[in-house]
Amino acid sequence: MPKISKKGVAMPASPIRKLVPYSDDAKKRGIKVYHLNIGQPDIATPQQAIAALQNTKIDVLAYSHSAGTVSCRKKVAEYYKRWNIDVTPEEIIITSGGSESILFALNTCLDDGDEIIIPEPFYANYNGFAVSAGITVKPIVSVIDNGFALPSMDEFEKLITPKTKAIMICNPNNPTGYLYSKEELYALAEIVKKHNLFLFADEVYREFAFDGAEVFSVMNLKEIEQNVILLDSVSKRYSACGARIGMFVTKNKEVYNTAMKFAQARLSPPSFGQIFTEAAIDTPQSYFDEVLEEYIARRNVVVEAINKMDGCFCPNPKGAFYAVARLPIKDSDHFCQWLLEKFDYNGETVMLAPTTGFYSTKGMGMDEVRISFCLNVEDMKASMKCLEEALKVYPGRK
Amino acid sequence: MPKISKKGVAMPASPIRKLVPYSDDAKKRGIKVYHLNIGQPDIATPQQAIAALQNTKIDVLAYSHSAGTVSCRKKVAEYYKRWNIDVTPEEIIITSGGSESILFALNTCLDDGDEIIIPEPFYANYNGFAVSAGITVKPIVSVIDNGFALPSMDEFEKLITPKTKAIMICNPNNPTGYLYSKEELYALAEIVKKHNLFLFADEVYREFAFDGAEVFSVMNLKEIEQNVILLDSVSKRYSACGARIGMFVTKNKEVYNTAMKFAQARLSPPSFGQIFTEAAIDTPQSYFDEVLEEYIARRNVVVEAINKMDGCFCPNPKGAFYAVARLPIKDSDHFCQWLLEKFDYNGETVMLAPTTGFYSTKGMGMDEVRISFCLNVEDMKASMKCLEEALKVYPGRK
Repeated sequence: MPKISKKGVAMPASPIRKLVPYSDDAKKRGIKVYHLNIGQPDIATPQQAIAALQNTKIDVLAYSHSAGTVSCRKKVAEYYKRWNIDVTPEEIIITSGGSESILFALNTCLDDGDEIIIPEPFYANYNGFAVSAGITVKPIVSVIDNGFALPSMDEFEKLITPKTKAIMICNPNNPTGYLYSKEELYALAEIVKKHNLFLFADEVYREFAFDGAEVFSVMNLKEIEQNVILLDSVSKRYSACGARIGMFVTKNKEVYNTAMKFAQARLSPPSFGQIFTEAAIDTPQSYFDEVLEEYIARRNVVVEAINKMDGCFCPNPKGAFYAVARLPIKDSDHFCQWLLEKFDYNGETVMLAPTTGFYSTKGMGMDEVRISFCLNVEDMKASMKCLEEALKVYPGRK
Repeated sequence: MPKISKKGVAMPASPIRKLVPYSDDAKKRGIKVYHLNIGQPDIATPQQAIAALQNTKIDVLAYSHSAGTVSCRKKVAEYYKRWNIDVTPEEIIITSGGSESILFALNTCLDDGDEIIIPEPFYANYNGFAVSAGITVKPIVSVIDNGFALPSMDEFEKLITPKTKAIMICNPNNPTGYLYSKEELYALAEIVKKHNLFLFADEVYREFAFDGAEVFSVMNLKEIEQNVILLDSVSKRYSACGARIGMFVTKNKEVYNTAMKFAQARLSPPSFGQIFTEAAIDTPQSYFDEVLEEYIARRNVVVEAINKMDGCFCPNPKGAFYAVARLPIKDSDHFCQWLLEKFDYNGETVMLAPTTGFYSTKGMGMDEVRISFCLNVEDMKASMKCLEEALKVYPGRK
């Protein structure tokens, strides 16, 4: 039998999915599992956008332009204007999910063996895309004690080598919920400018900023306009993860034209999703107001509950819909598996994501878990009760 | 300004799209352009499948399973059974178009610098995917004089090195329309077995076999079941290029599980397209009978017309919906551009794809063009008249 590639061997399995068999087993044993491990919102998709697709007459479901239909890109540019991000349809490529926009950015800007600096913990799939593109992730540790703020610029500079081509951030952050301030972003811009790097920013959680905070987009950083690529997606914004529509946005024409060559090779992004997206952009503000209120209520349940638990700490996330909590445990992978395999509280348990999978540095995140605000307030409360009771009896406590 | 990657520089632009500005100019000058350069069928998409999507209630447009929904994979397995291809839903990964299934195959089986042998001319975007994955295409020339039959096994063996990991074919072939016989495929299987290679087969034109011919699938080659990956797509089958739904199919569990890691990194294939695909698989046979009759009529117009033109030769394609014709010209890129820039016959001209872009070997295809059967019979006739008249006055004749 022929051998698979070294790349295939090196490719990491999803840290979120590796616990799925244990969760399935728990259900088979009749135990109710609260799934706080996933980034799939339970929020309803705007029905007017679904209706718009369902009312469109489609004779021939043709390839669209490789950058996406002109009408979809115009609408997306209109969306950005509302956020004071000034881009034209010719600076946007519609992609098959945010995932593809990340791959386009890596392929366009980095070669085999080149390095990208990413504050960790970070969205676990960045590791997979890095392996896919043959590049090396240089993680820079952000710490729970200050809520996972951006590490100091000295720390960044220590990591920069001749092979460093880019810095990538996610703002608001998955998995930490941290929202980078304008000042932090300008400090980063200085480094980017000084070392002539690219800056990739994943801003898919732009709508989810809590307590009156606002997301400052990298597209508005002065003087590094030619260095920036914005990576975006409709998945979380409109609870439309299945649409597989993302955006690759840059003012750098050479980068745009190169990314377009990768876009042309794969022909076009999904047509149905583009029709949906155009309509979704007209979702009324009231939808987001309600969703935000709901996420804040859920967050408050989590943060308050965990900070009351003995030996636990959960910084207050300012955005996205995740929190990372520090628990008095030795091995979060073991703990999360144990919750599903061995534990129940009145026939219920909770599924969490070990934060180990969100670090690139081995040994990090052993006492941390990521909690997604993807269930209603009552279920979040029941989940926190499970966690509290579990920690009382867990044999692997520190 | 930071530099783009060497990979980005090396990435080929689409040979089909590079003439688009000239075609746009011709239209601006009031000249009617017959587009025979593209693989976008004009055939109507089965409306019952569009309706199925439009009648589905969707509350939360969630991520599907990374391999595609179970119901979609079951339906796809059912489709294959009708073609006597025996696969289970657990041997299928639904991808974002056939394009993604190609990328999964390359990433799963080949490392940077590894080699893949592909008979040329071949689907131009294979070059882009190879650059993307960092691998090397070793082309093996098939020739127009025998209708682009599979080159001899001796020719294949000459190209095999320790870096050769796979052979890729497209059957029926884009751009040549050649349909590989069972005997040719078994000869290939011998080489694959002897040298322990992977065999990737792009069979997206399975439904389009003319004159009673049938496509023999690589999935039915005995003794190399563990070496084969079938790459497939609904794009051409149901005139649904915009659905972006493809398939990656293999009986090799290690290959499947590795491809799944790439699939998990990008989360899921498009959900709307999967709902559409499930319904499209129930498209009645009468639809295909009509489409096939139409394509045969178009092919006959092209083949008959070209073979009557002075100094021209067009083998009779047995499948897909393309023909490659040899014309008495020195430079097909120049000719195709000239048709748009300088020529018209009664206010009309024709847009063709230079075959140069379908060869990996430089200098090949200079006197060949690809013609797509993507317009109705009357338009195909008018296009052939344009071509005939153009060749009479073209200054770059051999």
